Amino acid sequence: MSAAASAPVRVALDAMGGDKAPGEIVLGAVQAAREYGIGVYLVGREEVIRAELAKHDTTGLDLPIVHTDEVIEMDDHPATAVRRKKNASMLLALQLVRDGKALGAVSAGNSGAMMAASLFTLKRLPGVDRPALGGIFPTKDNPCLVIDMGANTDCKPEYLQQFALMGSIYMERIFNVRSPRIGLLANGEEESKGDQLVIETHQLLKRSASMMGLNFIGNVEGRDIPAGAVDIVVCDGFVGNVVLKLSEGLAETLLGLIRAQMTSSLINKLAAAILLPGLRKVFKRLDYAEYGGVPLLGINGSAIISHGRSNAKAIKNALRVARQTAETGVAQAIAEGLTRLEEASKAEEQPQAEV
Amino acid sequence: MSAAASAPVRVALDAMGGDKAPGEIVLGAVQAAREYGIGVYLVGREEVIRAELAKHDTTGLDLPIVHTDEVIEMDDHPATAVRRKKNASMLLALQLVRDGKALGAVSAGNSGAMMAASLFTLKRLPGVDRPALGGIFPTKDNPCLVIDMGANTDCKPEYLQQFALMGSIYMERIFNVRSPRIGLLANGEEESKGDQLVIETHQLLKRSASMMGLNFIGNVEGRDIPAGAVDIVVCDGFVGNVVLKLSEGLAETLLGLIRAQMTSSLINKLAAAILLPGLRKVFKRLDYAEYGGVPLLGINGSAIISHGRSNAKAIKNALRVARQTAETGVAQAIAEGLTRLEEASKAEEQPQAEV
Repeated sequence: MSAAASAPVRVALDAMGGDKAPGEIVLGAVQAAREYGIGVYLVGREEVIRAELAKHDTTGLDLPIVHTDEVIEMDDHPATAVRRKKNASMLLALQLVRDGKALGAVSAGNSGAMMAASLFTLKRLPGVDRPALGGIFPTKDNPCLVIDMGANTDCKPEYLQQFALMGSIYMERIFNVRSPRIGLLANGEEESKGDQLVIETHQLLKRSASMMGLNFIGNVEGRDIPAGAVDIVVCDGFVGNVVLKLSEGLAETLLGLIRAQMTSSLINKLAAAILLPGLRKVFKRLDYAEYGGVPLLGINGSAIISHGRSNAKAIKNALRVARQTAETGVAQAIAEGLTRLEEASKAEEQPQAEV
Repeated sequence: MSAAASAPVRVALDAMGGDKAPGEIVLGAVQAAREYGIGVYLVGREEVIRAELAKHDTTGLDLPIVHTDEVIEMDDHPATAVRRKKNASMLLALQLVRDGKALGAVSAGNSGAMMAASLFTLKRLPGVDRPALGGIFPTKDNPCLVIDMGANTDCKPEYLQQFALMGSIYMERIFNVRSPRIGLLANGEEESKGDQLVIETHQLLKRSASMMGLNFIGNVEGRDIPAGAVDIVVCDGFVGNVVLKLSEGLAETLLGLIRAQMTSSLINKLAAAILLPGLRKVFKRLDYAEYGGVPLLGINGSAIISHGRSNAKAIKNALRVARQTAETGVAQAIAEGLTRLEEASKAEEQPQAEV
């Protein structure tokens, strides 16, 4: 407890958020504490959380409860809820981060509200135009970060330029990718392809990538995401959201069709049983729960927005990512990167001004 | 032959276009002639086509050759190629349509060039702002048309309104869907969701759907495409292209991972062999070749742009769709629909003007 007075050691978890709250959410915290030694503030209704904790062996685990009665519901209007429910579990979790008491915050509740609350409570980093959601996609090989995944529908080239920087820092620090490859999502690989936004962003990234220390490899197409051709895919939040939901839907439909075939007769069921261990590996690779949640990048702190359907495993991983994001200094690195970019841009403009 | 003088009875096929030209392309024509009784103009190098025809039994089939030496290559710049190669097989095929000698044209060649050539040769229908590509997506149930799939990257609400009308007419006439359900692709179902384009288009469609006779059901999300929630998904060509290529890539990656597991050991191979007939049904459902190609809608004629990888089956189906598009009067119906919309809009504006 003495450490809490100086540097935070715990992550704050909205114990009331998510379709499977509080059961799976609290269990996720127990697992994170046990497996990763993470201390977790469980924010929400004390008696409910206490009842859930009683179902598990929590001996020696650092799982203090921060009580509040207020909860933002899934169907609450995000901005209104954040304004009116000032003591909601989600907001208190973020306030612990703001006040230096927690390393980061995790919620699987109303994702629009968690985004608004994170922005409102932790604020944008200096120099950041628009914070963005970075979603991890399973691919043939390594995971790929798609940024923005839905925070900003109408974007300017400068926003996408910042998304590239934020995504690159995240993949370097959280997934240990050296010099991550950044692709700009377009309808063709040639730099002439794209809508107006993408064409302009391409030129901006081409000019500024080296001064930002970014490995911009050019335009990529939709097929390059699952193929694992790049580590980061940059797009506006409208397109990113379509990509996310289409992928989820397509994988679900496809696996559903395959599963239906595999269980359509006794002999098929037997054959499927033989293949199951191998196929489980495939399904596991596609499992969002492996990655825990989506970071909101560009804010002054670590906030992870977990899927509404999060189970204990997803929460456990989200808590791990929240701590890692804080401890590896993702936010600070983003602020520094943007300062460098601004200085480099000024230095580049200077000689022209003197001519 | 006598009928050719009055109304066209054949479809014109670019025999030189596609990765598998001329072999699979010519075979596709032979199969269409045999199975569907379609007469096909084979446009391209006569000796090459003749050599391919000699490999098959073409007794009694109506497969005249229209000779030309010029071909637009896959890596030719579309607009330049269409301007310079005036006798290219693709252009001659379209000219047969323009001159009333063919019902429609099919090419699996350079798709950008085929689009430019179709526009250039057949022209836009009166009232159409932007012709659009309508791509058929396999879903859990019935096929879904995504329009636009890449012809127009930067769009206005009025373009998308016309895409909705064109898509609806196509699904009614080619897939016999009664009152097809039209969804607007967005990042959420509420009408407040979307980027600026989508928000404005939603209002426009809401106001005008009934006077266009359209069944607009509101916004849909990426997941609704594979789920088969609607018959038509309206979006700009940038997003449509991402949707198309992401879907292709994801299905390929997923099936590749599953296939790798199924062949990773002898026992797995045996189990897979039992499941194969059922899985083939799944793969067949996802097979682009079933749908033959993508119509360019909004032009004065029937032009089908087939996938570069088209095999004989894809070409056979494309020829069938080209004939059906012409015979069911898709282009005429689009022109009529737009005239009705224009008149209805005028009538609606009238009272306000008089107030």
